[in-house]
Amino acid sequence: MVPRYTRPVMAAIWSPENRYRIWFEIEALACEAMAEYGTVPKDAAKVVREKGNAAMAAFSEADLARIDEIEAETRHDVIAFLTWLAEKVGPESRFVHLGMTSSDVLDTCLSVQLVQATDLLLKDLDDVLAALKARAFEHKHTLTIGRSHGIHAEPTSFGLKLAGHYAEFARNRQRLETARAEIATCAISGAVGTYAHLDPRVESFVAERLGLQAETVSTQVIPRDRHAAFFCALAVIASGIERLATEVRHLQRSEVREAEEFFHPGQKGSSAMPHKRNPVLTENLTGLARLVRSAVVPALENVALWHERDISHSSVERNICPDATIGLDFALARLSGMMSKLVVYPERMAANIESLGGVVHSGEVLLALAKAGLSREDAYRIVQRNAMETWTKLGTPDGKTFRQNLDADPEISGRVSADVLDAAMDSRQHLRAIDTQYEKIFGETGPQH
Amino acid sequence: MVPRYTRPVMAAIWSPENRYRIWFEIEALACEAMAEYGTVPKDAAKVVREKGNAAMAAFSEADLARIDEIEAETRHDVIAFLTWLAEKVGPESRFVHLGMTSSDVLDTCLSVQLVQATDLLLKDLDDVLAALKARAFEHKHTLTIGRSHGIHAEPTSFGLKLAGHYAEFARNRQRLETARAEIATCAISGAVGTYAHLDPRVESFVAERLGLQAETVSTQVIPRDRHAAFFCALAVIASGIERLATEVRHLQRSEVREAEEFFHPGQKGSSAMPHKRNPVLTENLTGLARLVRSAVVPALENVALWHERDISHSSVERNICPDATIGLDFALARLSGMMSKLVVYPERMAANIESLGGVVHSGEVLLALAKAGLSREDAYRIVQRNAMETWTKLGTPDGKTFRQNLDADPEISGRVSADVLDAAMDSRQHLRAIDTQYEKIFGETGPQH
Amino acid sequence: MVPRYTRPVMAAIWSPENRYRIWFEIEALACEAMAEYGTVPKDAAKVVREKGNAAMAAFSEADLARIDEIEAETRHDVIAFLTWLAEKVGPESRFVHLGMTSSDVLDTCLSVQLVQATDLLLKDLDDVLAALKARAFEHKHTLTIGRSHGIHAEPTSFGLKLAGHYAEFARNRQRLETARAEIATCAISGAVGTYAHLDPRVESFVAERLGLQAETVSTQVIPRDRHAAFFCALAVIASGIERLATEVRHLQRSEVREAEEFFHPGQKGSSAMPHKRNPVLTENLTGLARLVRSAVVPALENVALWHERDISHSSVERNICPDATIGLDFALARLSGMMSKLVVYPERMAANIESLGGVVHSGEVLLALAKAGLSREDAYRIVQRNAMETWTKLGTPDGKTFRQNLDADPEISGRVSADVLDAAMDSRQHLRAIDTQYEKIFGETGPQH
Amino acid sequence: MVPRYTRPVMAAIWSPENRYRIWFEIEALACEAMAEYGTVPKDAAKVVREKGNAAMAAFSEADLARIDEIEAETRHDVIAFLTWLAEKVGPESRFVHLGMTSSDVLDTCLSVQLVQATDLLLKDLDDVLAALKARAFEHKHTLTIGRSHGIHAEPTSFGLKLAGHYAEFARNRQRLETARAEIATCAISGAVGTYAHLDPRVESFVAERLGLQAETVSTQVIPRDRHAAFFCALAVIASGIERLATEVRHLQRSEVREAEEFFHPGQKGSSAMPHKRNPVLTENLTGLARLVRSAVVPALENVALWHERDISHSSVERNICPDATIGLDFALARLSGMMSKLVVYPERMAANIESLGGVVHSGEVLLALAKAGLSREDAYRIVQRNAMETWTKLGTPDGKTFRQNLDADPEISGRVSADVLDAAMDSRQHLRAIDTQYEKIFGETGPQH
Repeated sequence: MVPRYTRPVMAAIWSPENRYRIWFEIEALACEAMAEYGTVPKDAAKVVREKGNAAMAAFSEADLARIDEIEAETRHDVIAFLTWLAEKVGPESRFVHLGMTSSDVLDTCLSVQLVQATDLLLKDLDDVLAALKARAFEHKHTLTIGRSHGIHAEPTSFGLKLAGHYAEFARNRQRLETARAEIATCAISGAVGTYAHLDPRVESFVAERLGLQAETVSTQVIPRDRHAAFFCALAVIASGIERLATEVRHLQRSEVREAEEFFHPGQKGSSAMPHKRNPVLTENLTGLARLVRSAVVPALENVALWHERDISHSSVERNICPDATIGLDFALARLSGMMSKLVVYPERMAANIESLGGVVHSGEVLLALAKAGLSREDAYRIVQRNAMETWTKLGTPDGKTFRQNLDADPEISGRVSADVLDAAMDSRQHLRAIDTQYEKIFGETGPQH
Repeated sequence: MVPRYTRPVMAAIWSPENRYRIWFEIEALACEAMAEYGTVPKDAAKVVREKGNAAMAAFSEADLARIDEIEAETRHDVIAFLTWLAEKVGPESRFVHLGMTSSDVLDTCLSVQLVQATDLLLKDLDDVLAALKARAFEHKHTLTIGRSHGIHAEPTSFGLKLAGHYAEFARNRQRLETARAEIATCAISGAVGTYAHLDPRVESFVAERLGLQAETVSTQVIPRDRHAAFFCALAVIASGIERLATEVRHLQRSEVREAEEFFHPGQKGSSAMPHKRNPVLTENLTGLARLVRSAVVPALENVALWHERDISHSSVERNICPDATIGLDFALARLSGMMSKLVVYPERMAANIESLGGVVHSGEVLLALAKAGLSREDAYRIVQRNAMETWTKLGTPDGKTFRQNLDADPEISGRVSADVLDAAMDSRQHLRAIDTQYEKIFGETGPQH
Repeated sequence: MVPRYTRPVMAAIWSPENRYRIWFEIEALACEAMAEYGTVPKDAAKVVREKGNAAMAAFSEADLARIDEIEAETRHDVIAFLTWLAEKVGPESRFVHLGMTSSDVLDTCLSVQLVQATDLLLKDLDDVLAALKARAFEHKHTLTIGRSHGIHAEPTSFGLKLAGHYAEFARNRQRLETARAEIATCAISGAVGTYAHLDPRVESFVAERLGLQAETVSTQVIPRDRHAAFFCALAVIASGIERLATEVRHLQRSEVREAEEFFHPGQKGSSAMPHKRNPVLTENLTGLARLVRSAVVPALENVALWHERDISHSSVERNICPDATIGLDFALARLSGMMSKLVVYPERMAANIESLGGVVHSGEVLLALAKAGLSREDAYRIVQRNAMETWTKLGTPDGKTFRQNLDADPEISGRVSADVLDAAMDSRQHLRAIDTQYEKIFGETGPQH
Repeated sequence: MVPRYTRPVMAAIWSPENRYRIWFEIEALACEAMAEYGTVPKDAAKVVREKGNAAMAAFSEADLARIDEIEAETRHDVIAFLTWLAEKVGPESRFVHLGMTSSDVLDTCLSVQLVQATDLLLKDLDDVLAALKARAFEHKHTLTIGRSHGIHAEPTSFGLKLAGHYAEFARNRQRLETARAEIATCAISGAVGTYAHLDPRVESFVAERLGLQAETVSTQVIPRDRHAAFFCALAVIASGIERLATEVRHLQRSEVREAEEFFHPGQKGSSAMPHKRNPVLTENLTGLARLVRSAVVPALENVALWHERDISHSSVERNICPDATIGLDFALARLSGMMSKLVVYPERMAANIESLGGVVHSGEVLLALAKAGLSREDAYRIVQRNAMETWTKLGTPDGKTFRQNLDADPEISGRVSADVLDAAMDSRQHLRAIDTQYEKIFGETGPQH
């Protein structure tokens, strides 16, 4: 992920230094476990831990360079690290990595990094949820037109719109929790997962101290269906970001202008057109959603490794693990900020509801006619006729509002009273269930009118 | 999905007739709910139920044709169905669909169909699990070579290989259960999800009787993040099928021949080469996995619908819902059958283990030298030298086995005894943890040697 | 592809009967070629051709059933067909398929089918191009607002918008021509592509008569990079459909209403809201675009077949070949029809241009100030200030148009004349280059004002 | 793309500095064009060019920092650059960017960068083609077994295998040339592509000097179908890399060992198993192919921008443009190196051909029996019976070679002579067409035996 869309807090998780710190921790814990279960001298484990801790505490660019230098010869990253570690630890280093295979370290480390990344994403989601809830409560009674197919349908509450996104992000949080459990496993099982040179208790020991579960069966690697499921969860979240971003982009359209991203003083929307105030944050989120989603297919293609493993997944993961988590972290942080500062125009919302001459109340009028005894088909025909008359002529000299047309329709007159039509055309009826809905979504009804 | 890969039991779920049956059930239940809560006369609801039940019981091709005919005029499928239903039910039909919107019916129906499909897939997964468990128990002690990078690594158990796939499919079953909950929701909330013309209790009433949850917030539609998550789960399962299929394809390779798909009497492998016995089932499964996975991207693209909904998801779902569930059902059924009948060649497995002259035991020899006091680096160097000598010359006049080379190496002689080397080169050590592993995977150790 | 989105003319290409007709043609031509080059008796080839032609002329459901019956035993589709053909042709059938492998028939047949499908798609594209050109000419001088980021930018011509789509579809036509050449190859090269039992001239003979190129090197199969490139072309076209569909969906939005899909008499937009006129065709096209695109990933995954081939591509292609071509054919046909009948509202377009109080002319005013000697930075600041004043207050009691605000700005007064501002705010200047542009796009300027 | 898979030569193309250099060149050329066509004083254009050239020549980290600083306030990258440029150029800077919009600069710059990247990739492809041709010529007469379904089929030439990949990469080169033309366009057409404040000749002037074509119609942006088509081409190439990588991975399998990646002295294949020599380069290429392909879906999703443009494509392209080109450049460079150094084992290939007891000649024997007058069906049955007998028993005490079984079969004896069977079982016949094939692929027959 390019620096432009990278927050340092997430980038740090994917730094070489963080990786080496985790590698050392895994090796040290494994060594301690082996000491515990009798295959390594306790004193040796202690030396590994103490000298290793000291080396990690003093870890610098010079160490990174030294490890790179060894890797240039051995062409094997874990062996390079172990060789560097041996230089720091001395003869006791021969008790490090005993009976283990590189993937024991690599895959368990990846689990730790993904867990760290996920915990940050969960925090990001909490921020999004908080922003959405605050704005949903603020606009619980703000009437706005609901739209299907981009066409005015019936009025709804702007708060309820946001509450719907809140509900989706609450599901996304649950999905991410599930995804976290998917990838929070530890494997220390040797070359082909048989513990041939290892006590299975070493794995459990390390897993417990790292906050992971011991893997059910690893081959040489932790099975990649776990990672595929993880990236799928990120992609679903990204798509939820896109849905909300698309909503805001629509609301900010020049013809709609019901809401607007905050426009900073000094900000320039266009080099050529000084009047422009563009929804660039949400357009950016739309693109970031595409990027995060693009990790799904390679992650799925990574599942079918050959036999006990091939290493084709590695180059993929070196990229998609940081890219997708960094991209999603940035997007979620941007989303919660954007939503908190979103400028909302309730008057414009109210005006838009009525801008089609009242035809948005056609559904309620239809029901009123049906209640008055007309067949569904007849009622539909009559209402549609008057709505289309309004729709096509409003704004022209012949144009009348929906109500005016209804009042003039001989098939209606006498069937329903003016009071009934008044009620049918009152947008506030669409808030009737709002308390029930908020209770269901948030567990509380929120502010009362 | 083409008929070739379609099982009738899954196809029936996606038939127009099943759809109309569910539509009627939703409308009838909603009508009964409205009668219960006072907005529809109880007698009318009874007429709708009874005449409707009769119409559905007598449902025939003629009814399908009539509905198509109405749709050709109205260009709206739900209105076409309701008009047909009105022809069957009579005047009381005006109490049908009252205050509801088409999507209330369409989306709740889709939930029912997806639940039906999922229940079938869960059954399919149970069959796969049963087949894998049976073969894993059968081959718990069958030694075979483990391979990383396609290269012989260390021996393992063929049963353990299968157990690893069992564990993956057990995870897949859990994922599908989670996915089932994702899409098992009901929405009867009206045009833009405000229950403007509906009692929210109608939704709960219908949901309960259909075995669904009432949706937290629907807009006009059930939010599509749910469906995206569902298709992601199918894709992860498909990738698990591909992993197992790839394993079998590898094992059947002419040079490996450790296992083979059952070859039917009368079967012809090739029109040109009568000797061929090809792993066509698992190759087919590999392709089917690609197909099932291809539903993920459009499902993710379906999430960001405009405002309260646009209908772009519809054409996508009319295809991917049947295609992905039918394809996965067929693939899982084929997989369990293939695994049950897989012909396994333990002798060939045993021969392959030793085919590289014993170098597959290099890891254990490395450990033995390390235990004997050599530094890790020296031990590695010595073992690698002897392994490469064996690797490159075996089969030539100068070729010696790994053991012969080790015995002749002056850097080794005297350091480790013949007994230690014998032990290091005994494949059975790789079964040491097998009981522990089976207990962890299956909850039982399975057969003892 | 479900029947709803299938046109019979494209479906026929993918019917079993068409496939068998092509198979026979390939076998008959190959047999004639072998007769020509001396490896088959000329009389035998004649019998094969004549009896085969008769059998294909009389081909019926019974023949389909017989072939299926044989395949159920042999589990091999080509052998089943050849066996059926032998029943029709008699003893001379032993000269059929001589030295050939099934894939010679299957892959060459697929090439023929893809070419047939492509020729239909090219015709569809011509219809789209014709519709776009006609409407672009009709609306060459229809002013409309151009929008970037969904925000009004500067005026443009509605015809030019359509001309841009025309240019994209012209590129798409070229891409499809290129894709046609990619897949129009013939392979008759035997089991692993060595012509071991075949004269290479047979391949050239058959290729020429089928209007194909002989494949450069086939393994057992025609290499799948060709098919991947083909599906990529379809996906790019589908994305172009989505772009145009998205434009129309935006224009039909209730707040925009600059254009509208034709609404059929009798059509019902919504079961609950009789007033609705929804852009369902273009929403449908948006979904179909997702479906067609979904073939790309599996097509790319099909490229890396094992060695001289594995058959994993087959199940994929049995689905994506018909699905993607049928879906694209339907979408293109729907697109050209929709565009031809699109209802355009030039008055509404004109009104929308001015709906922001003239700020859409800010760019020209900026240039006028710059020409008048202001620095770019100062001019930008002044214009932005007046545009924002207009933007935020228009429609309120304090609201003034952009021109009113400019006229009142002391930093402007005296610098530019009223004439210059008049000119800067005249939308017609945006048509200045329209003749040049039409000439470049269509090779002709089209109608003059 | 992580540094591990990045070559500096490609990374430089995507550096901020290169971007700013190109931006300046576009602005300077446009200014010169405007001077040429009379809208800008010639002296001013000269000052812009000279002072700008000097500023770019002295461009340093300090300039990068200054531009970043301005962008932090304006939140607009092009305005930030222009402001920096104005600081360097002085008052004449007001003639820079006149009537242009940011995208004129951004999109034309992207075209230049993509062309630079493509030219590097074309060079990479030439290296791959050269390596493949050299090895194909070297092994023109090296017999090896051809495999379909992973099962031995018939002998072929190892050189021909490579020649098939050569032909695919030659197609890929052609596709990349086509893709280069797709994205080599220039747009200088103003805010919504109408040249409202610009002379269209400015665009042509700049295009010609940059080696680009003037775009047919740009909206605000160069249409993104071009970029989608470009990334599709990269994806097809990546899949071709995967196919060749998969071939090598198969050949290096322990049971096959017909070829092997060069193993460096000092290289360590595994930390735990000193005997390992793994095909890590080709596994890496397999993963890189997945990464490069993952750009296709977001690139396709970028096509349907809203109206005259939205900016959602930007964040996508900031990542996929460098990532996909850097990844593909690295992969192609690795591929040509790997192929040049690939260690090939012809003896092992020869041994593998015969390892199934000669059944790989079943096709030729089938033809011999057919020529001898047996019906195809009888011949197939007899040959299959003997092949299966060989297949299942070879290596057991009862095992006989295919030839031994044929000789003992009473249905064969007397029908075909020993000479005919000898000829049928001679692998060299599979080289019969090799000269013809090489001529077709390479335009020359290559070395003679």
